[in-house]
Amino acid sequence: MYPYLLLDSEKCVRNIELMITKTNESSVFFRPHFKTHQSAEIGTWFLKRGISGITVSSLKMAEYFSDHAWKDICIATPINILETDSINDLATKTALNILVESLEAVRILNHKIQNTIGIFIKIDTGYNRTGIAVENPEYIHQILTELKNNKLVFKGFVSHFGNTYQAKSKGEINSVYNSSVQKLLKLKSQFIMDYPDLKISIGDTPSCSIAKDFSRVDEIRPGNFVFFDVMQWKLGSCSFEDIAVALIAPVLAKHPERNEIVVHGGAVHLSKEFILNEKGERVYGLVSCFTDGKWSHPIEDAFVSSLSQEHGIVKMTSNEITKFQIGDLLAIIPIHSCLTANLMRSYRTKEGRIIEMMP
Amino acid sequence: MYPYLLLDSEKCVRNIELMITKTNESSVFFRPHFKTHQSAEIGTWFLKRGISGITVSSLKMAEYFSDHAWKDICIATPINILETDSINDLATKTALNILVESLEAVRILNHKIQNTIGIFIKIDTGYNRTGIAVENPEYIHQILTELKNNKLVFKGFVSHFGNTYQAKSKGEINSVYNSSVQKLLKLKSQFIMDYPDLKISIGDTPSCSIAKDFSRVDEIRPGNFVFFDVMQWKLGSCSFEDIAVALIAPVLAKHPERNEIVVHGGAVHLSKEFILNEKGERVYGLVSCFTDGKWSHPIEDAFVSSLSQEHGIVKMTSNEITKFQIGDLLAIIPIHSCLTANLMRSYRTKEGRIIEMMP
Repeated sequence: MYPYLLLDSEKCVRNIELMITKTNESSVFFRPHFKTHQSAEIGTWFLKRGISGITVSSLKMAEYFSDHAWKDICIATPINILETDSINDLATKTALNILVESLEAVRILNHKIQNTIGIFIKIDTGYNRTGIAVENPEYIHQILTELKNNKLVFKGFVSHFGNTYQAKSKGEINSVYNSSVQKLLKLKSQFIMDYPDLKISIGDTPSCSIAKDFSRVDEIRPGNFVFFDVMQWKLGSCSFEDIAVALIAPVLAKHPERNEIVVHGGAVHLSKEFILNEKGERVYGLVSCFTDGKWSHPIEDAFVSSLSQEHGIVKMTSNEITKFQIGDLLAIIPIHSCLTANLMRSYRTKEGRIIEMMP
Repeated sequence: MYPYLLLDSEKCVRNIELMITKTNESSVFFRPHFKTHQSAEIGTWFLKRGISGITVSSLKMAEYFSDHAWKDICIATPINILETDSINDLATKTALNILVESLEAVRILNHKIQNTIGIFIKIDTGYNRTGIAVENPEYIHQILTELKNNKLVFKGFVSHFGNTYQAKSKGEINSVYNSSVQKLLKLKSQFIMDYPDLKISIGDTPSCSIAKDFSRVDEIRPGNFVFFDVMQWKLGSCSFEDIAVALIAPVLAKHPERNEIVVHGGAVHLSKEFILNEKGERVYGLVSCFTDGKWSHPIEDAFVSSLSQEHGIVKMTSNEITKFQIGDLLAIIPIHSCLTANLMRSYRTKEGRIIEMMP
């Protein structure tokens, strides 16, 4: 069946090994985020290289990986207090860390949690999505004072520098990374006397790919780097050759009179994530030739310009269009591989083997 | 587990019955598009009301509904010639219609198709996504001449007036509908002598919801009307009370200092489809109160302003924010229910029953 998500497992393993090498050099704990691949099998590629702890983005994902040999899991979204029963269950099977960012949540956890879990406080260093502002240590003090259930073990501060995704250059990513780490170190210094084991955990893929040294933090949690994608390539996190997934989509129709090819590959395959090109046009994917199981560098001036549920419209010069026939396969390089993988629900290797994701 | 997709089955059945009544009044064949709900059970709500033929958007979906009692199916995307073996198999189990728009595809079908299938030619009346331009009857003649395999039975012309989604008013939708139908009728008149049974099939939800009379066409194929959504409401296709699905998402965090609430409900639940509000801000969903299993009219000035994989950021006045606590449930009204349903993969009824979708 078409389209399918081709995984270049050699590139993926190379990305994993490179990140492991970097973390070893900085002596930082590597807790990769598994929300990108969501696959027990890809998880084993980390396990066999000595990784013991992981990050996930939902309780459901934590349960899946707990059932697949992972015994040290951090759920890196603010805890949903409606799910404390499931959290208690899961904590009997795996060492579990959760994130809190409010007194209200801590009060509920005080009452409900019966098995030991690690508590990280979510800190906002400037991304403004979730977390307590790093400039607000008073509220953090209140939360720590409120942690009265001895099953709740304070572990440290978690932050996600998502503002690196808005950066315009590698220098700017480094700058966001350095200033954010600096803020966290200052925060740490205010609490380290009372909590000598407290850890700092950070984890966006742009920072973790571009920064050379993580030794000032204790843990990193990148996820997207296993596959990378167009967004990461444009940010400078990777080279095009590091991108490890592509949607293989058949040509359904050709409309050279308006420089378009229609492929079977739509919003339910790629997701509607886009970037803007220099002309301000929305780009939902780049387009490569696909021959002998490999995809080429992107075809110049070709891109997915719009998506409906199952169709993708590829803009391409009429000269390029003449090279393709109805039924030919194109490789669409995803803008955001996490969302594409999440939609596709399985991978196909170059050898034609299917790698499953969580159901 | 949260979030979940709540289906108000009474509203859904009312939407279905209203469309059936309209099609009966126009004596037009109603072939609903099942890509929106993708559910065998919701399919039975049509079946028991006398509907016998359906539309789907992929071969996989055709196979699923064929396995669930549907014996007259149109796959309404241009045929993928790499899947002719599966099409031959499926044609032994169900009456199948497929869409072609190129000589190349017809030539492959001539060679490969062994079981009788209906052929619709895809016509573009101005949407410019797929199809042969309605002003190009010569190419249609060529295709019909090229149909040499007597298993390929020409049925007529299919068109999708997707340009109604860009309309600014009901009047404009009616205008696109009327002018497009007019073009198809002219085309029909050029071929009806040779093909007296040829049918015209059309099918966008805005046209089918707003137009009062379909008697000039032979078949309609809307899909989204079963649930509707914010996009359809803004277009005027439905009232807010007709929208039949909402994502029920817990409040994870409150940030009144920047007028924000964080919910567990992200891009992997809602999809990244958005509309722009009057201020030009992206709106990924509207936000309603959720009490006693029902959602309210949208909270004024509240909307989902950004999505990451699992988180949604809801903008809301600080006054409104005080009404919600961590762990409260909000109802997020999707911008595009087809994409949200496709991501959620099941529905929960008001009575708490789970309705499955195709695997």
